[in-house]
Amino acid sequence: MHDIKVVLVGAEHAGNVGAVARVMKNFGVKELVLVSPKFASFDEAYARAMHGRDVLENARMFKTVKEAIVDADCVVATTARLGDQYHVFRTAITPQTLVENLGGVEGKVAILFGRESSGLTNEEIKEADIVVTIPASEDYPTLNLSHAVAIILYELFKSSLSHLTKKKVRAATRREREQALKFFREIILALGYREEKIELVEKAFRNIISRAWISGREMHTLLGVLRKIRDRLCETDKANKPLTS
Amino acid sequence: MHDIKVVLVGAEHAGNVGAVARVMKNFGVKELVLVSPKFASFDEAYARAMHGRDVLENARMFKTVKEAIVDADCVVATTARLGDQYHVFRTAITPQTLVENLGGVEGKVAILFGRESSGLTNEEIKEADIVVTIPASEDYPTLNLSHAVAIILYELFKSSLSHLTKKKVRAATRREREQALKFFREIILALGYREEKIELVEKAFRNIISRAWISGREMHTLLGVLRKIRDRLCETDKANKPLTS
Repeated sequence: MHDIKVVLVGAEHAGNVGAVARVMKNFGVKELVLVSPKFASFDEAYARAMHGRDVLENARMFKTVKEAIVDADCVVATTARLGDQYHVFRTAITPQTLVENLGGVEGKVAILFGRESSGLTNEEIKEADIVVTIPASEDYPTLNLSHAVAIILYELFKSSLSHLTKKKVRAATRREREQALKFFREIILALGYREEKIELVEKAFRNIISRAWISGREMHTLLGVLRKIRDRLCETDKANKPLTS
Repeated sequence: MHDIKVVLVGAEHAGNVGAVARVMKNFGVKELVLVSPKFASFDEAYARAMHGRDVLENARMFKTVKEAIVDADCVVATTARLGDQYHVFRTAITPQTLVENLGGVEGKVAILFGRESSGLTNEEIKEADIVVTIPASEDYPTLNLSHAVAIILYELFKSSLSHLTKKKVRAATRREREQALKFFREIILALGYREEKIELVEKAFRNIISRAWISGREMHTLLGVLRKIRDRLCETDKANKPLTS
């Protein structure tokens, strides 16, 4: 099993948090983080946690998602809302594809679950490397919070059983991905993309490199190419500028 | 999706029954049957059912498992208790194996879930054709009732999808991927990569775009960027060449 951290963002019902603690215990996941929970008393959480009481007792609390994911090497956001105006940020994979691909990832994986009423905001989703959605009925795709956690942890647990013997390839680190993004940003700036398109183009690139589960070796190659492109484009930019500027 | 009937045997908490109704609605399963429930009021069930209210309203009630499964072509029992003195009756398969095997089954499938406190009795399990257990931590394998239902229905729903031609988001076509590769090849040639490195770099790029599940829209954006880079690099190449060549 990966080193998993379950991050509940703005949870509104203590009972759900208790149910989450229980199912974490069921699947051997210890680290629970609450970001600005909206309930006053933990009584109902303890009542529902059953043998997951220790998970609740050890839960940590933060004000923002940013603080909660500081130590994560891979951040996964979950959403039931797909498509429409949000589609750029919410191009999601299934839990099964997630676990197939997490095979190569080392380090800590933080999984964000949003508010019962409204899920994660676009801003919160932008913090993630990967967006996951649980396939469900189009009539009513919004699962109960603890059900969503149960299904994702179940897939992870199941895959850990079958992955025990498989060898691991080193995955690109978060830092390497950030470096790739930085080069890419410099490239699209040099290409003269307009302000309003830049975010969209960057997001598409980020989606692609997050979803591709790039190995350390592939990332090394990609960074080399991006660096060369950046250098060449910036050179030409300089060459085109009047000497006096 | 199969014609599924969820049978809750001796359910003790109305809230759990409501949560089950909700997740049934999430996965498009309509038929709920209660065998001798142990709670007096359905208030908490309705409160937790959310948009699964109609599933609850249409639920039927029986005194015994035998009556509840009269119309089923295949009966599945679920259990968290394996082995020991019960092992003859409790030799179980996983939910994943269940759905693989149900592939060939036609007609109605009844899935039995036992009491929150003690599960199904041996007598009840003997009524089933198949026993299923959800793989979980040995320390605490007993899932919450509605979590168990959620996971089994999720597996069934997932497998029903893979029989259709899923996804609403158009994926990038093979032809688009080839176009991206063509641009990329022109770019690395313009960057002056040596012959022996080109194949390696191309291969890394091909791996990344194949693995990334790029949407049609993301591909459109990526192609735009690659085309611009190609044009700029080839322009400079021309500019750098002696006029007489």
